[in-house]
Amino acid sequence: MPSPLRRILFGSPIPTAREAQERLSKVQGLAVFSSDALSSVAYGTEEILRALVLAGAAALALALPVALSITGVLVLVAISYFQTVHAYPSGGGSYIVAHANLGATPGLLAAAALLIDYMLTVAVSITSGVEAITSAAPQLSVIRIEMCVAAIILIAWANMRGVRESGIIFSVPTYAFVVMAFALIGTGMYHLFSGKPVPAGPIVTPEGALQPLTMFLVLRAFASGSAALTGIEAISNGIPAFRKPESRNAGRTLIAMALLLAVMFLGITFLANRFHIAPDAHETVISQIGRIAFGSGFLYYAMQAATALILLLAGNTAFADFPRLGSILANDQYLPRQLSNRGDRLVFTNGILTLGLLASLLVIIFGGSTHALIPLYAIGAFVSFTLSQAGMVRHWIVERSRGWQWKLVLNAIGAAATAVVSVVVIVTKFVHGAWIALLLIPLAMFLFQITKRHYDTASKLLSLEGETPAPWNNPATHIRHKVVVPVSGVHRGTLAALRFARSMSADVTAVMADIDPAGTERARAAWAKWCNDVPLVVLPSPFRSTVMPLIEYMEEVDQRPADHMLTVVVIPEFVPAKSWQKYLHNQTARLLKDAILYKEGRKHDRIIISVPFHLSR
Amino acid sequence: MPSPLRRILFGSPIPTAREAQERLSKVQGLAVFSSDALSSVAYGTEEILRALVLAGAAALALALPVALSITGVLVLVAISYFQTVHAYPSGGGSYIVAHANLGATPGLLAAAALLIDYMLTVAVSITSGVEAITSAAPQLSVIRIEMCVAAIILIAWANMRGVRESGIIFSVPTYAFVVMAFALIGTGMYHLFSGKPVPAGPIVTPEGALQPLTMFLVLRAFASGSAALTGIEAISNGIPAFRKPESRNAGRTLIAMALLLAVMFLGITFLANRFHIAPDAHETVISQIGRIAFGSGFLYYAMQAATALILLLAGNTAFADFPRLGSILANDQYLPRQLSNRGDRLVFTNGILTLGLLASLLVIIFGGSTHALIPLYAIGAFVSFTLSQAGMVRHWIVERSRGWQWKLVLNAIGAAATAVVSVVVIVTKFVHGAWIALLLIPLAMFLFQITKRHYDTASKLLSLEGETPAPWNNPATHIRHKVVVPVSGVHRGTLAALRFARSMSADVTAVMADIDPAGTERARAAWAKWCNDVPLVVLPSPFRSTVMPLIEYMEEVDQRPADHMLTVVVIPEFVPAKSWQKYLHNQTARLLKDAILYKEGRKHDRIIISVPFHLSR
Repeated sequence: MPSPLRRILFGSPIPTAREAQERLSKVQGLAVFSSDALSSVAYGTEEILRALVLAGAAALALALPVALSITGVLVLVAISYFQTVHAYPSGGGSYIVAHANLGATPGLLAAAALLIDYMLTVAVSITSGVEAITSAAPQLSVIRIEMCVAAIILIAWANMRGVRESGIIFSVPTYAFVVMAFALIGTGMYHLFSGKPVPAGPIVTPEGALQPLTMFLVLRAFASGSAALTGIEAISNGIPAFRKPESRNAGRTLIAMALLLAVMFLGITFLANRFHIAPDAHETVISQIGRIAFGSGFLYYAMQAATALILLLAGNTAFADFPRLGSILANDQYLPRQLSNRGDRLVFTNGILTLGLLASLLVIIFGGSTHALIPLYAIGAFVSFTLSQAGMVRHWIVERSRGWQWKLVLNAIGAAATAVVSVVVIVTKFVHGAWIALLLIPLAMFLFQITKRHYDTASKLLSLEGETPAPWNNPATHIRHKVVVPVSGVHRGTLAALRFARSMSADVTAVMADIDPAGTERARAAWAKWCNDVPLVVLPSPFRSTVMPLIEYMEEVDQRPADHMLTVVVIPEFVPAKSWQKYLHNQTARLLKDAILYKEGRKHDRIIISVPFHLSR
Repeated sequence: MPSPLRRILFGSPIPTAREAQERLSKVQGLAVFSSDALSSVAYGTEEILRALVLAGAAALALALPVALSITGVLVLVAISYFQTVHAYPSGGGSYIVAHANLGATPGLLAAAALLIDYMLTVAVSITSGVEAITSAAPQLSVIRIEMCVAAIILIAWANMRGVRESGIIFSVPTYAFVVMAFALIGTGMYHLFSGKPVPAGPIVTPEGALQPLTMFLVLRAFASGSAALTGIEAISNGIPAFRKPESRNAGRTLIAMALLLAVMFLGITFLANRFHIAPDAHETVISQIGRIAFGSGFLYYAMQAATALILLLAGNTAFADFPRLGSILANDQYLPRQLSNRGDRLVFTNGILTLGLLASLLVIIFGGSTHALIPLYAIGAFVSFTLSQAGMVRHWIVERSRGWQWKLVLNAIGAAATAVVSVVVIVTKFVHGAWIALLLIPLAMFLFQITKRHYDTASKLLSLEGETPAPWNNPATHIRHKVVVPVSGVHRGTLAALRFARSMSADVTAVMADIDPAGTERARAAWAKWCNDVPLVVLPSPFRSTVMPLIEYMEEVDQRPADHMLTVVVIPEFVPAKSWQKYLHNQTARLLKDAILYKEGRKHDRIIISVPFHLSR
C-alpha cells in the first residue's frame, strides 16, 4: 500500500475498472480541447508586431494583412482536420495518421515533431501566462522564471494526481477568456467608433539600425504569428471523448473553435493597429489594448486573470497529450517501456515527469521569455500538420469512399499550405532559434530508432523458438551446481549463507580475499572452529580489492572440466533496519553482483543468490 | 583490472607491500609538516587589522601588541606539544591523546573539532592562496570562486593518485615562502631605517558608523589573529615519519617551526604598522607591504607566487590529515567503514572525496572570501589544542615519570591558555559565524554516536554466540525450500528461471500479477504449452502494481503450515549488453528485491535468487 505521504500528495490509488470515461458535450468539448488553440491569441498578434517593428513604426500597419493570411491558413487547416475527424473516429493524431498511411519513418517524424511541440506548448503557454501576470503587476517580473517553474511543478503535480478532463474545471477559464476577449474587442470597437481619443503613433526606438521592410521580414512576421494556429489539432486526438455521434459532435466543435479563433485573432490585431500599439519589453500587447479599452480598472484585471488562466490551462493540455503520445510510442517500442506504465492514479506518471522536467529546462534556458521561445515553436506543429494531411491524401487514394476526389483535393490543399508555412517558419526563423528545434527532431528520431532496435534484439533473444517445453529434468536426482560463497570473515551472516549453500548443493567453496593479513588469520582460525565442512580458499589480493580476486577465481573455476551444471554465487547480504544505515556498510555485495552480471556474466551464466542477514532485532 | 581511463587519471594500482615509508630529515620534515602553520602568516596580520579598523585608523596601532599576545600563546602551545611529541612517539593527534586520557566523549569532541578544522584549513588556505593571486592580478578576481574550486579539485585529484609526502615537492614552496618572507621583512626594515618615504596614514572610510575601541574589539582582533596558530599540531601527528630518533628530531623541528612562525608573524605585523597599511577589499595586506618594500617588480611577483604556493600546499596538508583521522575514526566504528578502505593507490579515497566536496561547498557558500570564513576557523583548532593538552595533564598524573610535576605544570599552562583563547574566539566571533562551527561540532559528534550504535548492534547480531558449528544438516537428504518465481510472461528468460528453480526444489510456484487481462490470457495459453509442470498463480492487481500482489501472496505463503525450510524467490533478470539499455526495461527485478528485502524481509527470512538473462548475442 502507498505510504501516507504518498496518499496525501497524490491521492488514493484508482482501480483500473474506474477507467470508463465521462463523455463530453460540444460545449464542454470546446472548453477541454481548445484552450491551447484559443489561448494563442494572447501572443499571436504580439509576435507579428515584434517582427514588423524591426522595420520601424510604419511597418506595423502590415500586421492586419499578415493576420489575414494566417487566418487563411487556419481555414484550410480546419477544413482538413474536419475530414480527419470523420475518417478516424477513434482518434487521428498525426502520428497515427502518418504512420498508417505514409509508413514508419514519416510517422516517427510526426511523432518527434509533436513531442517537441508539446514541450514548447508548455514552455510558451506558461511563460506567456506569467507575462500576463507581470504585465498587470510589473514588480513580479524579477521572479518570472521562478513563477514559471512553480506553475509547471503545480500542473505536473495536478496531473500526477490525475486531472479528469472534466467539463467544469476547463469551462470556467476557457469561456471566461472568450467572454473577456469579446468584451475587449467590443469595448475597443466602441472606443474607436465613438471617437474617443487614442494614443498617438508609438515612438519606436529600435535596438540597432532600422531594417528595411523586405519580403523576408514580412514572411518572418507571418511565421511568428502562425504560432497562433498551434493546438488546432487537439480535437482530432480526442474524438472518443465526445458524446455520440462522436465524429459529428467533434467536427462541429472544431468549426466553432476555428471561428472563435479567427474572430478573436483578427479583432485583437485590428485593435492593436488602430490603437497604435508597439511591442514593449515589459507589457504584453493584449495588456496594452486592455488598458486603453477598459482603463486600469476591474475589467482590465479580470481580462489579465482570464488570460493567465487559459494559458496555464493550455500548458495543462500538453500534460495530457505528451504522456499519451509517449505511451503510444512506448507500446510500439519506440520509447522506453516505462512511459507506457500507468501509475496507481491511472495516469502515465513517467511521461508527466519527463515533460515537466524538459519544459522547466526550456523555460530556464530561455530566461522565461515567450518571445525567445517562439522561434522554436510552431515548427513541430506545422511539420506534423503537413504529415497528417499528406497522410489523409494517401488515405483517400486507398479508400476511395464516396466523394473521395473532393476530400483528397481539400486535404492536398491543406497539406500544401502547411508545407509552405513549415518552410517559411524554418527559413525565416532559422538563425533565431529554429535550428534548435530542427536539431531536436532528428535527435528524437534517433532515440526512437535505437530503442526500437534494442527491443527487437531483446524479443528475438527471448523468443521460445528452439526451446524445449516442460517437463524438464527432475532436480532431486542430480544436484551438481558448483556453489561459491564469498565471505569477509566468520559471523552469523556467513553461517546463514553457508547453510543455505549447503542446502542446495554438496559442492560448496567459500572464498575470501586476503586484504589484511591479520584479519585473514583470525578468519582462518574461526573457520576451523565453525565451518570446517566447507573448504575456505584465501585469494591473494595485492591491490586490496575484494571483487577482482573473486572474479579471477570464477574464471578459473569455469575453465576446469565441467562436472557441474551452473556456477552459483551465494552472497551474504546485510539488510539494515533503516535504509540510511546501508551507507555504513561497504557495499561489497552490490559491487560483486554488478561485476558478476555486467563484466563477466556475458561469457558465462551465473546465478546470484542473496542470503539476507537482517541487522535489526 | 582498472580501466585504461582510470589508470591514466589515477595511475596504476600500488600493491600493499610498497607501503614502507620514506623517512624524513628535520629539514624535509619542517617542509612537510609546517606549510599549514607557516602559511597562516599570509592572513594572520590582515585579520587583526580588519578587526581593529572598525574603530578607525588610529586603532591599527594596537596590531603589534595583539600580535605579541598571540605569539605568547604560540610559545605556550609549542612547549606543550614538544612534550606530547616525546610522550607519544607513535603519533599523538588530539583525538588519540584526548581519547586515551580523558575518555570517549572528550576524544570525540576533539575529533569533531579537528575534522571541521581540516575542512576550514582547506577552505581558508585555498581562498587565501587565490587572493594572493588576485592581489597581483586583480582582473582575475571575478573568477575567484571558480579558481578556488578548481584548485580543490586539482589537489583532491593529486591526492587520489597518492601524493607521497616526499621532501622535495614540499621543500620548494615552503622554503621559497620562508625565504621570500624574510626577504620582505629585511627589505622592509632597510626601507624604514634608511629613511625612505612611507605612505601617509591610511584614509579609512569605515562602512557604517565608527565603533568605539572597546576591550571586546581588541579581543576580537586577538581571536581573528589567532588563526595564525592553526596547523601547529601537525608535527605531533606525524612523528613516525621522521628519521630516528624520531621524537627528538620531531621535537627540534617543532621548535624551529615555532621560531620561524613567531619571527615572520611579528615582522610582518610590525611592517604593516610602520607602513600605515589598512586592510583593503581588493588587495591583501602582505601584498600591500610587498609593493612598498619591493616595488612592483620581479621580487613582488615572486613573493606573491610563493605565498599562493605555500597556501595551496597548506590545503594539501589537510587532504592528508582529514582522511587519516577519518580512517582512525572509521576503525573505531565512529564513521562509516568506507572511510577506512584504502583505494588501489593506497590512499583513503573516500575521505579525500568527502573533504573535497565539503571544502568546495564552504568556499562557494562563503563566496570565496577568506575574511568571511575566518570566524568559523580557529575554534576547532583551539578546542582540540585544549583537549589534547588537558589529556597530557592527565597523562602525567597517571604516568608519574621523572620530572612529571614540571611537565604537568607546562601542559596545564598550555591547556589553560588555549582554553581561554577558545572562549575568546567563541564569544567575540559568535555572531560573525562562529555559531556555525559550534553547530557543526555537536552535529559531527551526533553522527559519530549513531554510527557507533549501529555498528555495535550489528556486531551483537552477527556474533556467533549460540550458533551451532558445522557439520550442518546434509542437504541432499531433504530439500524443502518453497520456491516462488514471479513472471511477467513466457519467454526464454522465464524458462531459464523456472529450470533453475526446478533444479533446486520440487516445490516451485510461478506467480504473475494480472495487470492487463489480454496479456494474462496470452501468458496462460503459452504457459499450458511450455511450462505445464510448474503451477501458475495469477494474482489480481486492481491498481496495476507488479510488486504489491506478490508481496501479499508471500505473506499468505508464510502463514500456511510450514512444511518448507525457507521461501526462495527466483527472479528472472534481464542483463542488457550496454548499461544505458537497462533504462529501457521496467526495473521490476530491482523493485521486487527491494520490496522483499526492505519492506517484508524484516519479518521473514527470504532468499532472493537472480537468474540473469543476457540480452546480447
